[in-house]
Amino acid sequence: MTVIAYGAQAADRALEPMHINRRAPGAHDVAIDIAYCGVCHSDLHQVRSEWAGTLYPCVPGHEIVGTVAAVGAHVQGFQVGDLVGVGCMVDSCRHCADCEAGLENYCDGMVGTYNGPTADAPGHTLGGYSQSIVVDQHFVLRIRHPQEQLAAVAPLLCAGITTWSPLRHWQAGPGKTVGIVGIGGLGHMGIKLARAMGAHVVAFTTSESKRADAEALGANEVVVSRDAAAMAAWASRLDLIINTVAAPHDLDAFLTLLKRDGTMVLVGAPPSPHPSPQVFNLIIRRRALAGSMIGGIPETQEMLDFCAAHGITADIEMIRADQINGAFERMLKGDVKYRFVIDSATLAQAAA
Amino acid sequence: MTVIAYGAQAADRALEPMHINRRAPGAHDVAIDIAYCGVCHSDLHQVRSEWAGTLYPCVPGHEIVGTVAAVGAHVQGFQVGDLVGVGCMVDSCRHCADCEAGLENYCDGMVGTYNGPTADAPGHTLGGYSQSIVVDQHFVLRIRHPQEQLAAVAPLLCAGITTWSPLRHWQAGPGKTVGIVGIGGLGHMGIKLARAMGAHVVAFTTSESKRADAEALGANEVVVSRDAAAMAAWASRLDLIINTVAAPHDLDAFLTLLKRDGTMVLVGAPPSPHPSPQVFNLIIRRRALAGSMIGGIPETQEMLDFCAAHGITADIEMIRADQINGAFERMLKGDVKYRFVIDSATLAQAAA
Repeated sequence: MTVIAYGAQAADRALEPMHINRRAPGAHDVAIDIAYCGVCHSDLHQVRSEWAGTLYPCVPGHEIVGTVAAVGAHVQGFQVGDLVGVGCMVDSCRHCADCEAGLENYCDGMVGTYNGPTADAPGHTLGGYSQSIVVDQHFVLRIRHPQEQLAAVAPLLCAGITTWSPLRHWQAGPGKTVGIVGIGGLGHMGIKLARAMGAHVVAFTTSESKRADAEALGANEVVVSRDAAAMAAWASRLDLIINTVAAPHDLDAFLTLLKRDGTMVLVGAPPSPHPSPQVFNLIIRRRALAGSMIGGIPETQEMLDFCAAHGITADIEMIRADQINGAFERMLKGDVKYRFVIDSATLAQAAA
Repeated sequence: MTVIAYGAQAADRALEPMHINRRAPGAHDVAIDIAYCGVCHSDLHQVRSEWAGTLYPCVPGHEIVGTVAAVGAHVQGFQVGDLVGVGCMVDSCRHCADCEAGLENYCDGMVGTYNGPTADAPGHTLGGYSQSIVVDQHFVLRIRHPQEQLAAVAPLLCAGITTWSPLRHWQAGPGKTVGIVGIGGLGHMGIKLARAMGAHVVAFTTSESKRADAEALGANEVVVSRDAAAMAAWASRLDLIINTVAAPHDLDAFLTLLKRDGTMVLVGAPPSPHPSPQVFNLIIRRRALAGSMIGGIPETQEMLDFCAAHGITADIEMIRADQINGAFERMLKGDVKYRFVIDSATLAQAAA
């Protein structure tokens, strides 16, 4: 089936309308009419080949929500018309220890929703900046939010699970004080999720101007990280920090805010290394610096169900497909509160 | 009481015999006739003021073993003649969360066995390169090894507990594959302890010449870290790494050997920072880089009892007190298998 997509033909080209093929649904496949797709920072990095190995044409997008259009003969639990989502991956090896633990995101054979290996033409996966997608049922998530929230659910599939997974793994909840560093696409979800989990949430931002926004998102406290006295007041008081800032920065400024046995989890990799953290700051309180990458399918479903139950969605700015290149530029400047979402209904018009 | 000690009068002076005072034992104190004292790398750093804040005269030594000479009226569980040990600390605040958790080593009020604040003259604590010491009973450890092993027990009080604590905290044991990086004072204890705990032990050394020694210490496998192919064969296979190397080195070479959710624990702080580790290596398998500092009193007793039950001691080279300056020079070159221990009986002769 030929559908309209938005993608790039080369690293130095803007995104433009194109036609791509989607396979006929196999026995275990779910065909999805895409309603909305969130715009993630990694879309920009990959489409511009800023990370190694981008294949062209590149159709990005891994924050996909829509409606089931067809199901294969062996699909269980999904019916035509169901609201569903697809996140950062569409396949994995299915039998390694990671897959068996429901952590397909750490499987060596994980296939990304775009730029991953596939038998389908053109030989690599094409993502959610398109009218439809066909995905094995194992990687399809159920959405229990009301239909009118669907667009704002899209960013949960990457920004949501990327913060949810470490918050759960490192046991954020009542009695825990959790820092969220950076108030952008990931950070704004981290604040909402950590607060809803029952943690005491301390948001860290470089900008005093974001204080009111952070509080509105649910932060119990807001600390301007350029204010040395304000930072010093938080020394050794946090159980967990989710650090969403991918730009190189001083990790010690935050590591020193951890209690004994506290962990700071990095969810973004900087293009050049952070200044090397002081080992002394780790040793004197048995602190840890860790990393976390998106999340597995079972925990993604758990997160979506939690968000539906708690009325949590992302704060979004809806755009037309033909606004995507401008949205990339604004995203680079941090000029979005807090996630762009493409209205997939505009793809046909953009291609016309 | 005036006793003979070996210490330095200034950062640029060699260690020399001196007379120091020990307080009369208070109601909760244990007076200990020191039999042996291990020589730790940190003794050298502190006596030369390579870390900030050394007070003089400086009498180092925090791997102390000996015999109870006297006990205060309220001392319970220790009697004159008992074999006992004192490690890196002689006091703490006793009421913070760390102290209540038995992790006095992380207490802000922890008082080091030397160079820590005290009401005793000269106003800072003086360590185990001396004939005797007086210590609050809370910080005195019972030694259940046979008397003839006493000298080789001394290094357990620092090198032993410094590796034991992270091995236990990060759950080394049967079914776990544990890497020990560096085969020196700490590393040789790490190999012995991890093996006795039931872990599969992989020792990492820069030198092929240490292979037989590492195997004799108990390593199941030995990897020469300069051999890229040998290192690659261990990618993503270790549950835990105890990294004892304090010299700046490439942490990524070892972080990439961790499985998902594996942790590398640094137990030494380098004088200048390690090259900054790649965040990507942490993120892709939810790995962690952590630090750990000695251990608490309950776990030190647990470690000593475990070692007594398993016949574990350190491999030592006994020296006379007047050989300490030469021993420091040899230690700097890594020329010791694996710990110098001062025979305290030689102090009187050295001072004569």
